[in-house]
Amino acid sequence: MNQTFNSRLLDTAVGELSKLPGIGRKTALRLALHLLRREPEEAMALGQAIMDMRGNICYCSRCHNISESPVCSICSDTSRDETVICVVENVKDVITIESTREHHGLYHVLGGVISPLDGISPSDLEIESLVERVRTESVREVILALSPTMEGDTTNYYIFRKLAPLDVEITILARGVSIGNELEYTDELTLGRSILNRIPFKDTFS
Amino acid sequence: MNQTFNSRLLDTAVGELSKLPGIGRKTALRLALHLLRREPEEAMALGQAIMDMRGNICYCSRCHNISESPVCSICSDTSRDETVICVVENVKDVITIESTREHHGLYHVLGGVISPLDGISPSDLEIESLVERVRTESVREVILALSPTMEGDTTNYYIFRKLAPLDVEITILARGVSIGNELEYTDELTLGRSILNRIPFKDTFS
Repeated sequence: MNQTFNSRLLDTAVGELSKLPGIGRKTALRLALHLLRREPEEAMALGQAIMDMRGNICYCSRCHNISESPVCSICSDTSRDETVICVVENVKDVITIESTREHHGLYHVLGGVISPLDGISPSDLEIESLVERVRTESVREVILALSPTMEGDTTNYYIFRKLAPLDVEITILARGVSIGNELEYTDELTLGRSILNRIPFKDTFS
Repeated sequence: MNQTFNSRLLDTAVGELSKLPGIGRKTALRLALHLLRREPEEAMALGQAIMDMRGNICYCSRCHNISESPVCSICSDTSRDETVICVVENVKDVITIESTREHHGLYHVLGGVISPLDGISPSDLEIESLVERVRTESVREVILALSPTMEGDTTNYYIFRKLAPLDVEITILARGVSIGNELEYTDELTLGRSILNRIPFKDTFS
């Protein structure tokens, strides 16, 4: 911190704000001055919300999603299908999939994907706990919903091998052309896969 | 707020973060999830810094800059030249001018510029208090350091008229070509002014 603002409190706030990803010191100063111009209640609400969130959100002991109680709201929702587990990389992906309203089962958050280059090995992820859930809960289907990248595919295959001895159906997200995209701009690998995995036209009417 | 994240605390934090300028709900969610991944101390420090800043920073009764005491650190710095007041639009401009280390006098923060379109009239600004300072303090020079825009120029002229009856020198920031910019890209108005206000070459050696 080479520039100070004639106020230790402002310095501290700018310093803390600029630790956030994508927020440099200039933006941090702009945000701090914005908060100084607004009603005190607004800054207090922001500060309190951040502290409440970090202080009270923990991780679900069952699916490792964020939770405000030992078991998260999705895992404890009895209207959901407990026999289907959707495996995702992180908490953000749970939110994204929930927003589609197409998955009515539970989740299992791995906390990342296998990536030797980044030093992330299977033991760093919640894979053993997934195997344990499939072994002990009455799971019928595991949906692998990782990103279609090399790391995602490696992780998919690793999980597939781990679950193979167990009596569970393992499915994966369909690969295909993106809805609304020009065919011209779809990469050949995806386009090729979408031809191989073509489906009866009448199935798209639902 | 049409999307919720299965956690009221996360919802609240994202809601408060997205009130910040330039931060939409997607970015707010990214920031919140970042804070959840980091050590609790980091989020607590951020929340506390924001609340401390907003709760304890007030405005200097003399120059209206931000301050942690009734009179700010610049106004109470006895090594500064009390006879020169630099008039700026806002707190950010004080920081910017301080970083040049070229002004050794005091400041006077107007809190904006006259802008009839935005409904900002002279009475909304700290102009009367500036006149009062010039009248009662031993001020030798007032430097008008507002933006070279129509609103800035209007405000400059209004202040000039107000201070004219008093025995004080009124100066304005030099208009000219920006250092490091290609002459080709300098607008004609600025270039024309820089020719009119040309200075002896030897004066640039200092």
